Amino acid sequence: MLSEDEVRRQIQDNRRFMKSIFGKDQYESDQSKKLPQPPLSHPAKGATVIPLTKDFAGVVKEADYLALLHARKSVRVYKQEPITLEQLAFLLWSTQGVTGIRGSGYAALRPVPSAGARHPFETYLAVFQVEGLEKGIYHYLPMEHALEFVGAVDNLEDEVSVSLCGQGWAAKGAVTFFYTAVAYRSEWRYSIASHRVMLMDVGHVMQNLYLSAHAIGCGTCAIAAFEQEVADRLLQVDGEEEFVVYAAPVGVQL
Amino acid sequence: MLSEDEVRRQIQDNRRFMKSIFGKDQYESDQSKKLPQPPLSHPAKGATVIPLTKDFAGVVKEADYLALLHARKSVRVYKQEPITLEQLAFLLWSTQGVTGIRGSGYAALRPVPSAGARHPFETYLAVFQVEGLEKGIYHYLPMEHALEFVGAVDNLEDEVSVSLCGQGWAAKGAVTFFYTAVAYRSEWRYSIASHRVMLMDVGHVMQNLYLSAHAIGCGTCAIAAFEQEVADRLLQVDGEEEFVVYAAPVGVQL
Repeated sequence: MLSEDEVRRQIQDNRRFMKSIFGKDQYESDQSKKLPQPPLSHPAKGATVIPLTKDFAGVVKEADYLALLHARKSVRVYKQEPITLEQLAFLLWSTQGVTGIRGSGYAALRPVPSAGARHPFETYLAVFQVEGLEKGIYHYLPMEHALEFVGAVDNLEDEVSVSLCGQGWAAKGAVTFFYTAVAYRSEWRYSIASHRVMLMDVGHVMQNLYLSAHAIGCGTCAIAAFEQEVADRLLQVDGEEEFVVYAAPVGVQL
Repeated sequence: MLSEDEVRRQIQDNRRFMKSIFGKDQYESDQSKKLPQPPLSHPAKGATVIPLTKDFAGVVKEADYLALLHARKSVRVYKQEPITLEQLAFLLWSTQGVTGIRGSGYAALRPVPSAGARHPFETYLAVFQVEGLEKGIYHYLPMEHALEFVGAVDNLEDEVSVSLCGQGWAAKGAVTFFYTAVAYRSEWRYSIASHRVMLMDVGHVMQNLYLSAHAIGCGTCAIAAFEQEVADRLLQVDGEEEFVVYAAPVGVQL
């Protein structure tokens, strides 16, 4: 437990972190130093790649934006039913799918904005009940709009629950989303100003996950409280250059 | 300009800031100490209060969520035309409107999630061209779904442009949104873990502003780069307990 003085000091530091340092000329970015741009997304690593559809006409049950806004809520209890691969494809595309490429590979546009179009995130899934997929950890390939299998995990529910600070309900949906930040992708352009905007950017992504989950008859609940090292290990990311920033289970609405 | 060593050190610190410290038992929150909960939103201060409609049937031109996802882009050039008060009402409600109260005043639900339902933001507007409103700074009252007039500002376009690091285009829409964080509203529950999640939370809000702007035939572009002290002064917030975290102009699409 930190002392009260230390808590007060950290609160002041953290408030400062939330503020804009743009316009203060504190750094020269790697981009302005003409250092090479990092890749826009992780290339495929796994052997097993599962292509996904972009035909969402059959999966969107509630397409009315006003209705989705009115219905917005966090859902923590789910029907014990699988979702389809088409439904999962929609959740992935509507949060992190690629909708266009700008400037011969400079940026991949998505259905969410990102500061400087850096889109520093990777999407990982703990799949529990998705038709046609075996249980385990998956990684989304946004350029290909496909999934790759990362690996099976013994006692996946328990591992996911522990990684999310023991929130057992978060391993009882059809799938649990994990978003990682690949920090240098944004640091290359914004250096020390990048970390504040990466957190804002992942909020854009999560809002679409809420709307999209409801649109297909599911529910979700954003989770910022996780055991950092446990979650990073579960997804096989290094915890230094890439680390979990947000998570959310999605399951069928009761 | 910071030294390269200092930049490297700050990048490490900032990456740490992005990570979850939940589950580490570093603090006892004011909520768990039974200290009184701060107000859910600022009460009305101004004399002039402008009530807003919740009837959005006439203003939503594109209600199809899939179409809004496909159309998502950042828009930085606007037609020099006013928007209506009804359109503005929709932008305000769909981002920060109150959709329900939980637990006898414990939380005000909104069309976006917020960690622990704290919703630590206030919405301010620099109004340039909105039918029925004089030019100036306004503040949104989410409980009443109303606007209050904060004050007129000489050379409003210039002041907004300077506050946004000289991005002149951001003062050429119909209205520029500013979101402030009232830090203690989230600190009360999450102490030193609150600042990371407030940044994520304001991202939820911004995503809805993108979708809603497009739904009414407008466009927007999120701005995280502002001159902190100038922006805080413009809105008449103290910069300590309350400070700007995000901004975005909205204007009619060309």
